Amino acid sequence: MIVFMERHSISEQVDRVVAELGTFGVRTTACVQDGRVALIAERAPMPEIIERIQALRGVAEVLVIGGSSRLGSRAYRSADSTVRVGDVVIGGPEFVVAAGPCAVENGEQLADVAAAVALSGATMLRGGAFKPRSSPYSFQGLGPAGLELLAEQRARTGLPVVTEVLEPAQVGPVAERADMLQIGARNMQNFPLLREVGRSGHPTLLKRGLAATVDEWLAAAEYVLREGNGNVVLCERGIRTFEPATRFTLDLSAVAVVKRQSHLPVIVDPSHGTGRSWLVRPLALAAAAAGADGLLVDVHTDAHNALCDADQALTAKEFDELMRSAGRVLGAVDRPLACSPALVEGM
Amino acid sequence: MIVFMERHSISEQVDRVVAELGTFGVRTTACVQDGRVALIAERAPMPEIIERIQALRGVAEVLVIGGSSRLGSRAYRSADSTVRVGDVVIGGPEFVVAAGPCAVENGEQLADVAAAVALSGATMLRGGAFKPRSSPYSFQGLGPAGLELLAEQRARTGLPVVTEVLEPAQVGPVAERADMLQIGARNMQNFPLLREVGRSGHPTLLKRGLAATVDEWLAAAEYVLREGNGNVVLCERGIRTFEPATRFTLDLSAVAVVKRQSHLPVIVDPSHGTGRSWLVRPLALAAAAAGADGLLVDVHTDAHNALCDADQALTAKEFDELMRSAGRVLGAVDRPLACSPALVEGM
Amino acid sequence: MIVFMERHSISEQVDRVVAELGTFGVRTTACVQDGRVALIAERAPMPEIIERIQALRGVAEVLVIGGSSRLGSRAYRSADSTVRVGDVVIGGPEFVVAAGPCAVENGEQLADVAAAVALSGATMLRGGAFKPRSSPYSFQGLGPAGLELLAEQRARTGLPVVTEVLEPAQVGPVAERADMLQIGARNMQNFPLLREVGRSGHPTLLKRGLAATVDEWLAAAEYVLREGNGNVVLCERGIRTFEPATRFTLDLSAVAVVKRQSHLPVIVDPSHGTGRSWLVRPLALAAAAAGADGLLVDVHTDAHNALCDADQALTAKEFDELMRSAGRVLGAVDRPLACSPALVEGM
Amino acid sequence: MIVFMERHSISEQVDRVVAELGTFGVRTTACVQDGRVALIAERAPMPEIIERIQALRGVAEVLVIGGSSRLGSRAYRSADSTVRVGDVVIGGPEFVVAAGPCAVENGEQLADVAAAVALSGATMLRGGAFKPRSSPYSFQGLGPAGLELLAEQRARTGLPVVTEVLEPAQVGPVAERADMLQIGARNMQNFPLLREVGRSGHPTLLKRGLAATVDEWLAAAEYVLREGNGNVVLCERGIRTFEPATRFTLDLSAVAVVKRQSHLPVIVDPSHGTGRSWLVRPLALAAAAAGADGLLVDVHTDAHNALCDADQALTAKEFDELMRSAGRVLGAVDRPLACSPALVEGM
Repeated sequence: MIVFMERHSISEQVDRVVAELGTFGVRTTACVQDGRVALIAERAPMPEIIERIQALRGVAEVLVIGGSSRLGSRAYRSADSTVRVGDVVIGGPEFVVAAGPCAVENGEQLADVAAAVALSGATMLRGGAFKPRSSPYSFQGLGPAGLELLAEQRARTGLPVVTEVLEPAQVGPVAERADMLQIGARNMQNFPLLREVGRSGHPTLLKRGLAATVDEWLAAAEYVLREGNGNVVLCERGIRTFEPATRFTLDLSAVAVVKRQSHLPVIVDPSHGTGRSWLVRPLALAAAAAGADGLLVDVHTDAHNALCDADQALTAKEFDELMRSAGRVLGAVDRPLACSPALVEGM
Repeated sequence: MIVFMERHSISEQVDRVVAELGTFGVRTTACVQDGRVALIAERAPMPEIIERIQALRGVAEVLVIGGSSRLGSRAYRSADSTVRVGDVVIGGPEFVVAAGPCAVENGEQLADVAAAVALSGATMLRGGAFKPRSSPYSFQGLGPAGLELLAEQRARTGLPVVTEVLEPAQVGPVAERADMLQIGARNMQNFPLLREVGRSGHPTLLKRGLAATVDEWLAAAEYVLREGNGNVVLCERGIRTFEPATRFTLDLSAVAVVKRQSHLPVIVDPSHGTGRSWLVRPLALAAAAAGADGLLVDVHTDAHNALCDADQALTAKEFDELMRSAGRVLGAVDRPLACSPALVEGM
Repeated sequence: MIVFMERHSISEQVDRVVAELGTFGVRTTACVQDGRVALIAERAPMPEIIERIQALRGVAEVLVIGGSSRLGSRAYRSADSTVRVGDVVIGGPEFVVAAGPCAVENGEQLADVAAAVALSGATMLRGGAFKPRSSPYSFQGLGPAGLELLAEQRARTGLPVVTEVLEPAQVGPVAERADMLQIGARNMQNFPLLREVGRSGHPTLLKRGLAATVDEWLAAAEYVLREGNGNVVLCERGIRTFEPATRFTLDLSAVAVVKRQSHLPVIVDPSHGTGRSWLVRPLALAAAAAGADGLLVDVHTDAHNALCDADQALTAKEFDELMRSAGRVLGAVDRPLACSPALVEGM
Repeated sequence: MIVFMERHSISEQVDRVVAELGTFGVRTTACVQDGRVALIAERAPMPEIIERIQALRGVAEVLVIGGSSRLGSRAYRSADSTVRVGDVVIGGPEFVVAAGPCAVENGEQLADVAAAVALSGATMLRGGAFKPRSSPYSFQGLGPAGLELLAEQRARTGLPVVTEVLEPAQVGPVAERADMLQIGARNMQNFPLLREVGRSGHPTLLKRGLAATVDEWLAAAEYVLREGNGNVVLCERGIRTFEPATRFTLDLSAVAVVKRQSHLPVIVDPSHGTGRSWLVRPLALAAAAAGADGLLVDVHTDAHNALCDADQALTAKEFDELMRSAGRVLGAVDRPLACSPALVEGM
């Protein structure tokens, strides 16, 4: 349940609502949504208490919503949300493709990949500067130097940049350099990080956890939303199952489940979701047909020598072919592929 | 490893190969493939032994293939297989849709559904006469009477019929009435049933088990193939995972994995694979885009009162819309939708 | 819901109850339990209809039970069931250990293993004559010859024998030779087989399916129970998960869940449940501590050369040590280890 | 591979080894172990290169270890590690039980529970001050005030305290107040947090992630170990599977797998691992029998009104019964239950 206060409600009125609900053992947390105080209750009380709350001074509206997804739910907002990243709009009529290397390795590598994906029509550049790796002895990313390289390629190609943050202290510095903050699958329930990203107000890409249900994923998004940051895009990237032929099992049903339950945009990562470069194309086309709002694709101009997840990166040529095929499938579901600024303006 | 004997090899020659391999602890099983005796070894012996075998009298060819998929593997046959069911060809250039009720309930219901799916362009009729149900207290299907009703609708609509068999003793009677035998997910490793279906030579639809890896699925197909029955079509229908938002997790990556490893056709069942009627359309389109050879779809003209899996059946209208959308997506991947005989000949 | 008819009820009275429930759309199946007709309803109707049914002539009692487990549920029978196999009682105060080779390979192997396990205190002999194997090219068991060998060892050691059946046609012949029929994990939902085993009245060991929930497992047992065969013992043998360090994930919680929901005995197979011989001992002791009624253990006197599941078999010496350790842990939970007839009578 | 430098090696010698390995594309990370510089290589190079490295000045020893577990592996240290927390030793001959409320709710609740568990023989007090919750609208813990309450009860009962940290910034303040830092399942791959906990040198309890393989779990421990903090205790707490009867599937095989691969102590949390209070006792006894080094148990003196995970907490009486039963099972496996200081000194 959410209690929206009037725009000009005073704090005594808010306190009164909190106290009244507290009497019935209902805990609330307050946040500001569209300039109004919203009190979100842990659970909905009995109907007669709801009536009583509605009658209190300063209360504008009471919305009864079940589940742990509140601000992200269709009940809260029936129309699709859009998230603007630079000049790119995710969740609108156009399908958006973010592409780039899994990890930024050096300036030359990033420049090559960025130029290639821009020319093939990608509308965003992805690349990891801080890499979460299972083993401490694996390559951990270039760190701040990687952020600089990403910023350079943004300037050169005009593509907005999405890159991962691993801890609260990185949010500020990364938000200064990158257009969108990525929360990786292993951090989907890193709640201090989610809150900090929420406070930043910065566009956020929230990957689904390896063992997260759709409900838990939407609940994680709620941590960002309740800080007043509505710029959340979800990303399906495969769940853990018993099947060893793929690294993860890409759950395309989840795209349609999210679309039904939530107003947030959702994109698909067929690279991490399958872990095999030869599976990226068929699954990317499937994602487009299933109603995803975009893709996140690993591309590497020297895939065999990639320092991270080499098996799953497409070559520039494979990515180009994917973009052409995706354009055709998207046409069949009446959804245009967003135009790369590189192609529009000539690079 | 497979040792192919010459067409005119004599049994002493075959015995000699078996004995020779046995000396090195390599067990073989014999089957007939394309009129030649093929001896399939449990595992490949050392290269020098292989050479020795190749030199034996009567041996035409030795093929070294790893994994438990042999006759179904791309190594055995690089070109795609096609399976003919009545006038329908599965695995060829055309995309094939089998549709109908989960369970045959009565003559009127089946007639309604069959007419509806035929008019919307389905090329095969599906319907269960013998239903495997988790609980013995659930509706178990009409049995032989259901087979009769299916045969009637085949006559009326011209659509070949696919229906499930649950035990070896049913294979003969069902093969007389139906065009294709379905092995359900729960029977994927019912080896006596697989062998019997293999012996029948009848076209067979082999659903993936709920917890089967792709390798185990292909190994199950091998039980049918080694009886000399090459008419096997695989069907992805969702695997069991932790996600409760869907009944199963449809694994569309498996379609592309199968296509890479095996020459057998593979279709997708988005109805059982998701268990939610509103997920059938997006996942069916995704399957088409991912390279599946066809679909198996539950349709019910009175979905709310279906006796079996009511939540997942499409209405006739929803199925019609699905067929139109699928046709467009298939166009985008250069694959025509097979033409229903009902539409061709006018019903 | 179950409607029990009086012992002397007549068929018109039974028909009346069936018809009355049918009026409200409630389907029933009839079976005979303890000499009385029992009508088991697919679902419970409204309370007022239940009252009406209770008032009908010939109705002795109406029992409202939810879930798909009815005859196996604690609601149906609150006391623990026991199942007698030869002179062995499973589910009573004593803990029962069945041990032997995964597959019967030849007379000498079986004689060696049988003697060894009997001397270490096993109370039953296990061994597969018909082996379900993922690949058709793997050793499939000795078949009828294996049954003969098992019968010989039963005569020699006095240990009752449990062995697997794969299809309905095997039930009769195997029941003549073996004391207990095993339904393997891959056949847990082979409903014709379950029904046939039910009709045989023979003691039955029902293994849990690789992807079966406890509810589905109990529903599978129900297929046997409703044929009037109450001699069902359940066997936990691991479920499929993402963890590759073990072949399956042994779910010991399931033992306690079954004990709470059902009156049926439940034993544990730590050999198949882990797939690693060095894990058998710790998990066997854990099963004893968790309240299981017994164990099923793979033992092979020449484990390295076993034709089936070699990695998981204990040597005779390891089995002997396991039995001593198990005896101590069982003592700590006040449960005696059943005495082997071999040890009692001297072999 | 690990290259240990001599105690008096100089930085030029270290640089030389790093450079030499770099020539062959082998990346290293340096850490200090027992006062010696250890260079841990991402992968092992060819044998001839290893020989060359061994011959370099300042190199004391080269240890070739596969997998991502290095410092935690049995290859690195064959004897069991012990971790001292206050006066308690985990991983030694005695079995250690940490018990307390899931979340610290208020002073009275914690005092009641602490007294109860101490009197029943618990040797550590557990309780969450910072709670990671799926939903931002659920109770998030008392925070710093909760830490104070824990410190008070430590003083009163003499029980060392284990409590969770959620982010790097909490590590310092929590380490000042608590005896052991817990990394929760959702943070198992929160690498900045693991590193910070490693730097603190404080005893650390690392729970297994919901979807983590044993290998990934040991790799996560490696992040702590390589900072020079060897005080790591692992905690199995259930993995995510398809089974809905329990909240998670407690994987007791993992205990024995860890014991074989690693020298680190491992305890079991049957409360979170099952999510059902009536499953805690059987699974706790099973864990003791399977060779775990201890338990982590939720206890609440008013379990029905617990603010967090109410379904899984034992009452004080149930916990007392558990301790008596555990003592008997531990006796059967020759392992004494550690003596509570409260019982020794009289509280």
